[in-house]
Amino acid sequence: MNLAVLVSGSGSNLQAMIHAAEKGVLGGTVKTVISDRSEAFALQRARNHGIEAIYLNPRDFSCREDYDQSICTLLEERAIELIALAGFMRLLSPVFVRRYPGQIMNIHPSLLPAFPGLDGVKQALDYGVKVSGCTVHFVDEGLDTGPIILQEAVPVLETDHEETLHQRIHQVEHRLYPRAISLFMQGRLTVKGRRCIVDEG
Amino acid sequence: MNLAVLVSGSGSNLQAMIHAAEKGVLGGTVKTVISDRSEAFALQRARNHGIEAIYLNPRDFSCREDYDQSICTLLEERAIELIALAGFMRLLSPVFVRRYPGQIMNIHPSLLPAFPGLDGVKQALDYGVKVSGCTVHFVDEGLDTGPIILQEAVPVLETDHEETLHQRIHQVEHRLYPRAISLFMQGRLTVKGRRCIVDEG
Repeated sequence: MNLAVLVSGSGSNLQAMIHAAEKGVLGGTVKTVISDRSEAFALQRARNHGIEAIYLNPRDFSCREDYDQSICTLLEERAIELIALAGFMRLLSPVFVRRYPGQIMNIHPSLLPAFPGLDGVKQALDYGVKVSGCTVHFVDEGLDTGPIILQEAVPVLETDHEETLHQRIHQVEHRLYPRAISLFMQGRLTVKGRRCIVDEG
Repeated sequence: MNLAVLVSGSGSNLQAMIHAAEKGVLGGTVKTVISDRSEAFALQRARNHGIEAIYLNPRDFSCREDYDQSICTLLEERAIELIALAGFMRLLSPVFVRRYPGQIMNIHPSLLPAFPGLDGVKQALDYGVKVSGCTVHFVDEGLDTGPIILQEAVPVLETDHEETLHQRIHQVEHRLYPRAISLFMQGRLTVKGRRCIVDEG
């Protein structure tokens, strides 16, 4: 099965997916990487592994829907079956989300529904939680509200600041995200209402 | 130091505190147990261990403030330094909360700020989270909004329903709540703004 990864930045989660694919445990191929930022290091990571890397400049489009439509066209041309957002800093328009129902995943650095949106790690520290974590979820039309696929807790240490906590959460992300993709590729995820049922096999 | 426990029901968390006190690891004495329900089994548990058990009927008071004031009077007479809510099903009035700043604790069966209020376990299952847990926090004037003292994650299993998940969360509660009380009794909790700093020693 063909996976597309949408990125805006460094792409460390993309790197984890590429590793998993090369080890044969992703259950699919990273077919293309699309970025809204030309300088995203994720594009370089893709090229380093012989993966197509596309920069699509939002300024070349008159509106969000046109931009998203052009991404959808690229995805359709490549017969993409799953789209993974990996630090993609744009909200997808409803047209995009409806075109790929239950086929778009995102990862978020908190235990949703706590601390959605930007700066999930900072939000958690400011609130004073003792446990945070990360969440892989399907994307719906809300902000980080779609059905949860996998979550894992990460303890907050008394000495933590945003960078140290984010780093430990990232380490878990790099394990959790490829696993969620692999479960999808194997047909082991079933969404019923708000719940995503994982067939643990 | 003297601890009072406010209860409305079975009192399994009270039982955990009594055990900890009898083992000498609570750092204080369960001085009195107060219930707003005459039939609360927690009252019987207290008596079984020779602890004062008081039933105070809310219907004997014209308003919430009068009821809370009568509890405060009981607490003052007994030189109570920490109040632990353990399944106490009434919201404390601001007068009560202000009388004991940073001296009232509560336990909640979710990882706050997710799923505050009633039926935290059911809320979490309905949302479809994969990780829930429990939270010991100081009580402020909001609903489950006070500074978090301790949290522990509990995984949600695919086969879980409300009862099975609640049972596993309860098991963690019975460990976490006495530990939070012990930390308080030893002067190892410091609240700074929203954050409660735990001196791990």
